[in-house]
Amino acid sequence: MLFERAAVIGIGLIGGSLALATKRQGLVGHVVGVARRENTLLDALRVGAADTVTNDPAQAVRDADLVYLATPVRAIPPLLAAIAPHLPAGCLVTDGGSTKRAIVQAAGALPASVTFIGGHPMTGSELSGPGAADRHLFEGSNYFLTPTDETPPDDLARLIGLVEGIGARPTLVDAATHDRVLAATSHLPHLVAAALCNALVSEDKPERFAGPGLRDTTRIAGGPANVWRDILLENAEDVREAMARLREVLDSYDAALADADGDALVELLERARDTREGLEP
Amino acid sequence: MLFERAAVIGIGLIGGSLALATKRQGLVGHVVGVARRENTLLDALRVGAADTVTNDPAQAVRDADLVYLATPVRAIPPLLAAIAPHLPAGCLVTDGGSTKRAIVQAAGALPASVTFIGGHPMTGSELSGPGAADRHLFEGSNYFLTPTDETPPDDLARLIGLVEGIGARPTLVDAATHDRVLAATSHLPHLVAAALCNALVSEDKPERFAGPGLRDTTRIAGGPANVWRDILLENAEDVREAMARLREVLDSYDAALADADGDALVELLERARDTREGLEP
Repeated sequence: MLFERAAVIGIGLIGGSLALATKRQGLVGHVVGVARRENTLLDALRVGAADTVTNDPAQAVRDADLVYLATPVRAIPPLLAAIAPHLPAGCLVTDGGSTKRAIVQAAGALPASVTFIGGHPMTGSELSGPGAADRHLFEGSNYFLTPTDETPPDDLARLIGLVEGIGARPTLVDAATHDRVLAATSHLPHLVAAALCNALVSEDKPERFAGPGLRDTTRIAGGPANVWRDILLENAEDVREAMARLREVLDSYDAALADADGDALVELLERARDTREGLEP
Repeated sequence: MLFERAAVIGIGLIGGSLALATKRQGLVGHVVGVARRENTLLDALRVGAADTVTNDPAQAVRDADLVYLATPVRAIPPLLAAIAPHLPAGCLVTDGGSTKRAIVQAAGALPASVTFIGGHPMTGSELSGPGAADRHLFEGSNYFLTPTDETPPDDLARLIGLVEGIGARPTLVDAATHDRVLAATSHLPHLVAAALCNALVSEDKPERFAGPGLRDTTRIAGGPANVWRDILLENAEDVREAMARLREVLDSYDAALADADGDALVELLERARDTREGLEP
């Protein structure tokens, strides 16, 4: 067992799945589930994700040796400030937020007696809440960890053990690089999938003309708006830079179309296809 | 049996699948397969898509009561001109091209003794060639037909019967509307999926950071560059207009990010999600 007592704050789909997977693998003993809504807490108990529950983060972390923050990203910095005075010495704190720079920065204010390591599991589902929790959710997926030069190697090793124990692939990266690259590989694609939907003309009844290509390309636009609002706002600068790069590429396509330049189109499309082939797992 | 003798010109994935499906359903008697390369013709015979083969379109159409053009879109207008003098009276000519306006216009020069009706089956595969032909390829998919005011009702009824007979849903639309709406629902999404790949920075090793969202959003960028060059060039004007609409939407997202305007982001994202939900079949 890596941790005796974990506090999972924001015990929804991700937090609940982590609790189920780590308990099943014997990596964690007792799980205290934390959420604001009583129904969420009851669901967490019902599916066995939490052994006990509370709506008070300060109380939940008091005896924990692992604190896992799984709320929407913008809630994490204030939560870190709220639990800071209550964290026991030696406690390992981590999170599952999709952006990392602002969270790692906020964690700098935690007491020196605890360790914070940022995390980002590249998994999810269109569902939400602990009722949708799945102990297989992390299997085969990338799991980013953002240790710093000050991270104690023992704590990093324990967290890597936890990530591997639930079947994910730990990938170490610094928070700034994580956010810059994810802007292009995740946040901008989400924004663009949504923008393609926004740009459809409803009078044209686009649903009559939708094929599998459009459905694939826009699938992630079905995600929850508030979660993606937070991610896009947290990483606004990097997302805007990635969008500026995309606009330059769109300019190239537009120029090729305006000039009926088939060779330029083929070059762009073939380069895209080569890149796309490299993205398969 | 709706047609005694069909000439399928360009007997690749689509043409081969159509031949297999129509023969299986007893809708077509004899299929003459046409392609330029001998290997393609041998494959078409081997899988049973063609009963006889030739590399000469003029010879293939001579005794046909159905001519199906399944080449890349830009090859169709010159093919129509080449076969025009050899088409028997009463012959029904149709095609499977992804753009329709230029093809329907070119078909205006066919003899008055034959009927042309444009077609566009919304199906496909990452594979190509008659070796990949699948008699189930059309089942459950949309199949656009672009009759005009001059189309004889009997011919349209026969073609609708063929489309329904292979399990597809016939959808009647004029060629200009087809191309305008497909620019937004198919051609631009393809271009954007490719552009998202082009905008990735290879030094960042984006493959390490790719999740299922990116893979869905860019899946169609794996398609054949020459086919998509043709489609984009054929429909350049409508695609550029759809791209201009997309750019306006991207401006709205960019402004919301610059102003950290969470409400504006949520409004855009929620509208996108509502539209996306309407696209499911």
